[in-house]
Amino acid sequence: MNIELLNTGSELMLGRVLNTHQQWLCRRFADLGCVVTRQVAVPDTARDIQSAVREALSRANLVIVTGGLGPTSDDLTRDLIAQLLGKKLRQDDTVLDHIKKRFAARNLPMPKNNEVQALVPEGAIVLSNPNGTAPGLAMKIDEDGRWKMEDGESRAPSSILNSPSSRSPKWLVLLPGPPRELRPMFDHLVVPLLRREFPLDAPFVCRTLRTSGIAESLVQEKIALPLGALVAAGLEIGYCARTGQVDVRLSARGAGGEKVVREAEVIVQKILGAQIYGFDDETIETVVVRLLTERKKTLALAESCTGGCLAHRVTNVPGASAVFLGGLVTYSNEAKQKFLGVRAETLAAHGAVSEAVAREMAVGARQQTGADFAMAITGIAGPSGGTAEKPVGTVFIGLAGAFGTVVERRLNCFERETFKEVTAGQALEMLRARLV
Amino acid sequence: MNIELLNTGSELMLGRVLNTHQQWLCRRFADLGCVVTRQVAVPDTARDIQSAVREALSRANLVIVTGGLGPTSDDLTRDLIAQLLGKKLRQDDTVLDHIKKRFAARNLPMPKNNEVQALVPEGAIVLSNPNGTAPGLAMKIDEDGRWKMEDGESRAPSSILNSPSSRSPKWLVLLPGPPRELRPMFDHLVVPLLRREFPLDAPFVCRTLRTSGIAESLVQEKIALPLGALVAAGLEIGYCARTGQVDVRLSARGAGGEKVVREAEVIVQKILGAQIYGFDDETIETVVVRLLTERKKTLALAESCTGGCLAHRVTNVPGASAVFLGGLVTYSNEAKQKFLGVRAETLAAHGAVSEAVAREMAVGARQQTGADFAMAITGIAGPSGGTAEKPVGTVFIGLAGAFGTVVERRLNCFERETFKEVTAGQALEMLRARLV
Repeated sequence: MNIELLNTGSELMLGRVLNTHQQWLCRRFADLGCVVTRQVAVPDTARDIQSAVREALSRANLVIVTGGLGPTSDDLTRDLIAQLLGKKLRQDDTVLDHIKKRFAARNLPMPKNNEVQALVPEGAIVLSNPNGTAPGLAMKIDEDGRWKMEDGESRAPSSILNSPSSRSPKWLVLLPGPPRELRPMFDHLVVPLLRREFPLDAPFVCRTLRTSGIAESLVQEKIALPLGALVAAGLEIGYCARTGQVDVRLSARGAGGEKVVREAEVIVQKILGAQIYGFDDETIETVVVRLLTERKKTLALAESCTGGCLAHRVTNVPGASAVFLGGLVTYSNEAKQKFLGVRAETLAAHGAVSEAVAREMAVGARQQTGADFAMAITGIAGPSGGTAEKPVGTVFIGLAGAFGTVVERRLNCFERETFKEVTAGQALEMLRARLV
Repeated sequence: MNIELLNTGSELMLGRVLNTHQQWLCRRFADLGCVVTRQVAVPDTARDIQSAVREALSRANLVIVTGGLGPTSDDLTRDLIAQLLGKKLRQDDTVLDHIKKRFAARNLPMPKNNEVQALVPEGAIVLSNPNGTAPGLAMKIDEDGRWKMEDGESRAPSSILNSPSSRSPKWLVLLPGPPRELRPMFDHLVVPLLRREFPLDAPFVCRTLRTSGIAESLVQEKIALPLGALVAAGLEIGYCARTGQVDVRLSARGAGGEKVVREAEVIVQKILGAQIYGFDDETIETVVVRLLTERKKTLALAESCTGGCLAHRVTNVPGASAVFLGGLVTYSNEAKQKFLGVRAETLAAHGAVSEAVAREMAVGARQQTGADFAMAITGIAGPSGGTAEKPVGTVFIGLAGAFGTVVERRLNCFERETFKEVTAGQALEMLRARLV
C-alpha cells in the first residue's frame, strides 16, 4: 500500500511555519502498520496543487491532502479537487448548519465567506469537524475510470490509470490545516475508514533502540554482521545519528515480522548493552528522571559553560519536580565560590575549567542542596577562551554521590549551542550509567 | 527560478524525527529573495531517491538534496546521484585526510566505513564540512546534455531536457543531514555559489522588523493604512505571528525596491516604536545581551517554573559571560530560601507562586550576586498544580534593579515546553523595555 501526504500552503514555502503534520501523520500511519511513501508540500496555487494531486494519485493508493479548506481567497483545495475529478460541488446542509451554530455559540454573525465551507464534491464522504468550520472530505476513486480528470487541460487520465497501483481503488482524503482540527478528525474518522478500506495484508513492526556515546559507523560495525541472518529473513536496519546519539531502527513486515524484530532486538541489546539508553521516543532526560523517581533519589545541578541547558532539559520532563531540587548556573568565579563553595585557591591553581573545579562544584552542589546526586559542568564553549592545553570545546563533567565523586574530561568541538546540547547530553548519560 | 528541496530519510517517513530542514532552508531562500517551489521527502531507497531527483530536476533550476551522505549502509545518496548522472566516484584525498584528522583529534581510530564519505562524483564541487565527516557536493548540470541519465533503466533524459526550465543550467546540491553540519555549510559555501550562479535579475530587498507584546491584528491595523502609498509603489507586507511576537516583513523587487523598503521601515518604526525589539534574525536574548553590554550592566536570574530555560537562552548568546553573573534554578522551596533568602513566612502566607515570592526571589538574586539587574520567575507550568485562584499557566515575573522592583502577572496557557519558552520570552521583553 502506497500512502502519500500532500501539504498545501504558501507559508510553508516561505519557511514562516514549521510543518508538523508530516511527522504526526507518519507516526500515526506507522502505528497502524503502514509506512508513508512520500511527503510533498506545495504553495497555494492552482497549478501546483492540481499537478501534485495528480502525481500523487498516479503513485499511491491513499493520498492525504492537508490545508486549503478555509473560507478565504487562498483556500483553493476544495474547488480544485472537484474540478480535477470532474465533480460538481453541492451545498451540504448539515455542514452549513454546523458552521452557523459555531458562530451563534460565540454570539457572532456568520460571515458570508464561510458558506463556501459547506460546499462538498458530489459523492464525497463528509468528515465532520467538531473543532472548526471546515469539514474533511474522503473520496473513493474507482478503478474502472469512473473518476475523470477534467482539469481544464483536457488531458486524458491515462498516466494515472496505467500506473502499477491503479488497478485497486484509490482514496483521496482532504483534511483541514489546523492541527487541533486535523488530529482528532484523523483519529476518529479517517482511521476507521482506512481500517475498513485497506485491510493490512502484511503487518509492519518497528522498534527503535536509542544509544549514546558511540559513533554511528561503530554501531553498524558492531551489529551489522550478527544481524545478517535476520536481514536475510526480512529485517530492515536503519541508523539515525544525532549529536552524541545514534538511533538503531529495526523493522520488518509480514507474518513473521514481529518475531524477526524481537530477535534482532535481543541481539542488539546483547552487543550494545548499557549504551542503549531508551526505546522508541524516550529522551535521555526522560529516562534519567524516571530512574531517579524509581530509585527515590534527588538531583542537583551546577552548570558553568552549559548555562542552564541541562536544568532546562531535566525540567522539560513532567514530574521532574519530584526529583530535581535545584540548579546553579555559576558563570562567574564569584558565583562558583559563593553558591558552591569552590575555593579561591583551587580556581587560582587550576583555573575555572579544570578537573579540580568540576569536582568542587559537584561536591558543593550536593552539600548545599542535600541532593543524592549532583552534577557539575565547567568548560569552554567558545568561540574564544581556549588555550593550547585546554582548547575551545574542553569540558569537565563531575558527578558526586554517596559513592564518591568522578570527573570526566571531554572535547566537544561544536558551535556554541550544539556544544551546550552535546555536553548536557553527556552529563545525562554519565548519570544514567550510574543509575542503571 | 524554481527551487526544490528533497529530504531523504526513512526516519522521516516513520515520523521518528521532525523535519526542520524545510523551514530553515525556505527561510534562508526567502531572505535571499527566492521562494522554494516544492518540498519533497522520500525514504532511503534507491528507487525513491532516484525518481524524486529526476522529477525535481525536470522542474527546477536548483535542487537541494539533504541526507544520505553518512557512512552507513542506508546512506545511498552519493552513489545514486553519481549513477543517475553517469559519473564515476573518485576518492578525494583532502576529504579523507579531514575525516582521519577528526577521529585522531578524539583519539579514536577511523572506522573503515567512514572511507566512503571521501568518495565524490567526478566533476563535483566538494563543500568542506568543518562540523562533520560528510562533505557536501555541488554539481552543475549543463544544458547541452553533458549530464547523462544512466540510471540502469537506460531511459533517455528527454523528460528532463524537454522541460520548460531545462534550457538554463541546473544545479544539484547535496548536503549532509545533521542541522549543525547543513546550516553552516549552506550559509558559508552554498549561498556564495548561488549568488554567483543565479544572479537575480530583479533585486529583492527584504527587511523584517520584530515586535513583541502586540497582537498581529493590531499591528496590521496600525501600519496598513500609513503604508498604503508604498504598497501602491510595490511594497509587499507580510505578517508572521509567533507566541508573543509578531514579525513584520517588508519587501520589494526591482530597481526602486530598496528605497521603498527603507521608507516603509521608517514609517513602521515611527508607529510601533519601542515595540520593535530587533531586526531580521535577531533574537530578543541577543538584543538584551547587547543592551546590557553597551550599558555595562550585569544580570542575575532566579527561575522556578522555567527551570533554566531563561538562563539557557541568555547563555546561547556569544559574549553573555561579560554581563551574566549567574542563575539559580530554585525548584524547591528550600532552594528558594537557601540561595535567594526568600522568607518561610512569605512562602507560607502567599504560596511559592505569588507576587510576593517573585519579588523576594528577584531582590534576593540581586543581593546574592551583586548584579545590576535580577529577574525572577515563579509559576505553574502544569500539567497539574493549578487552583481556581491560580490556574495552570499562572506566572509571576519579577525584575529588581537600582530603580526598585516590579512584578508582572501573566497567564500562559500552553503545554509545558511552550509555557517555558513563552514565559522566558516575556521576562526578556520586560528587561529589554527597561533597558531601551
